[in-house]
Amino acid sequence: LRRTVTSKDNDTVRLWGKISSQKKYRAEYGLFPLEGARIITDAVKENAKIKFLIAAKSSEKKFAELISRAEKSNADVIIVPDSLADLLALTKGTQGIFAACGLPEEIPLGKFIAPKKKYAVLHSLQDPGNMGTIIRTADAMGVDGVIAVNCCDIFSPKTVRSTMGSLFRIKFASADEDEIFSVFRENNIKMYAAVVGEKAVSLTDCVFPDGAAVFIGNEGNGLSSETADRCDEKLTIRMNGSVESLNAATAASIIMWELTKQR
Amino acid sequence: LRRTVTSKDNDTVRLWGKISSQKKYRAEYGLFPLEGARIITDAVKENAKIKFLIAAKSSEKKFAELISRAEKSNADVIIVPDSLADLLALTKGTQGIFAACGLPEEIPLGKFIAPKKKYAVLHSLQDPGNMGTIIRTADAMGVDGVIAVNCCDIFSPKTVRSTMGSLFRIKFASADEDEIFSVFRENNIKMYAAVVGEKAVSLTDCVFPDGAAVFIGNEGNGLSSETADRCDEKLTIRMNGSVESLNAATAASIIMWELTKQR
Repeated sequence: LRRTVTSKDNDTVRLWGKISSQKKYRAEYGLFPLEGARIITDAVKENAKIKFLIAAKSSEKKFAELISRAEKSNADVIIVPDSLADLLALTKGTQGIFAACGLPEEIPLGKFIAPKKKYAVLHSLQDPGNMGTIIRTADAMGVDGVIAVNCCDIFSPKTVRSTMGSLFRIKFASADEDEIFSVFRENNIKMYAAVVGEKAVSLTDCVFPDGAAVFIGNEGNGLSSETADRCDEKLTIRMNGSVESLNAATAASIIMWELTKQR
Repeated sequence: LRRTVTSKDNDTVRLWGKISSQKKYRAEYGLFPLEGARIITDAVKENAKIKFLIAAKSSEKKFAELISRAEKSNADVIIVPDSLADLLALTKGTQGIFAACGLPEEIPLGKFIAPKKKYAVLHSLQDPGNMGTIIRTADAMGVDGVIAVNCCDIFSPKTVRSTMGSLFRIKFASADEDEIFSVFRENNIKMYAAVVGEKAVSLTDCVFPDGAAVFIGNEGNGLSSETADRCDEKLTIRMNGSVESLNAATAASIIMWELTKQR
């Protein structure tokens, strides 16, 4: 189904506006927004469900193949005037191609976590760019899954963009803290709190032969001491003199590197 | 010298506007902007030269100690109405305290580089947040210096903010590519190009007993093949299946971690 729409009051056009602006609408409609050929191609390649695709008139030829692949997978395809496409754009220098992708089914943590595997647990991260970068790195490193507690929405446009397609490949779940601790304990997976501090074990002295879950805390405040104390061990990246902390995504990247390098 | 200024046409107020908006003015006046108590405190602590400090009337008491330290170091101190401070703010949720800091003297590369040391060379990085994060990580890891070729300005507000004070501690220089290659060769420092590719040596197989310089490329395109070929060796972070690349700051962080871990 390919049709031309010229009104910004069209239902699909309005739906794009809703899911790109607010999490509550993403939850209500079970959809999240993708902008740009690269990420939409990734979604199609990874068999994500594309509900609808909107393309600017001037982009229709350029992205003909992608549009026809979306059509074949039963997505609604809507062609809009360039002026309307500009209104729908979330980034500067838009390519004029947008899609709504079905939110993946939530996997219960019990089905997700397995013994001897390696996980990153993100606790109270609030920066969409950091979330996305960590998911991209987790995928690159071959981490077995990422679990988020009380974080910003990973299906927001900025996070989705920062994942560079890894969102469609990484195993991901949201959960609450109690559930996470109970499922990891059931699976005999050692839990590490990433902290700043003299008393914590240096990352260079850690080995992970039986899998591990590493908890990474909030950008400004790190992990709460309550959460850190619930973990089995505290680990730290030893730093030079007067530096107080690392960027959360940097710390997570170095830890995931060490975690997975020792396979 | 503490005085009250109410006009946005005041010379100092206008100078703040200039140095916070454009690199050419930073170069012309030899000043760069700092916003917020944390970074200004770092600057004072590291003996950076504070030329002037602007504080909102309502912030004067809260930051009394910082303001008086700036005064003692001969900075001009200007108190402005809150409404004017809001106009000067570069970030949401401003603390109403701003300073102009003298640009550090440029160190010639020949005096900067020494044998057996470890350096990161940033080539054509364009994202201020990435630049700042890399400088923060380099400082935390104890890298001996960061050299930038054709990068965005490290004295822009966003980069300065992302460095979290490391800007005042790390050894930093800008240089052109030819000069960099010649100075590193003179010092017998092996140069590594960080690339994505099967043929490059895995980072896990690299050792750096005699120092090293690692070249990190642009966010979108990586290092040019010309630059990579001029280096002594290509190294890579091996990645999982379908991931094409890492974020530039992530790649730099993991490499600097390995580079300095082996001291």
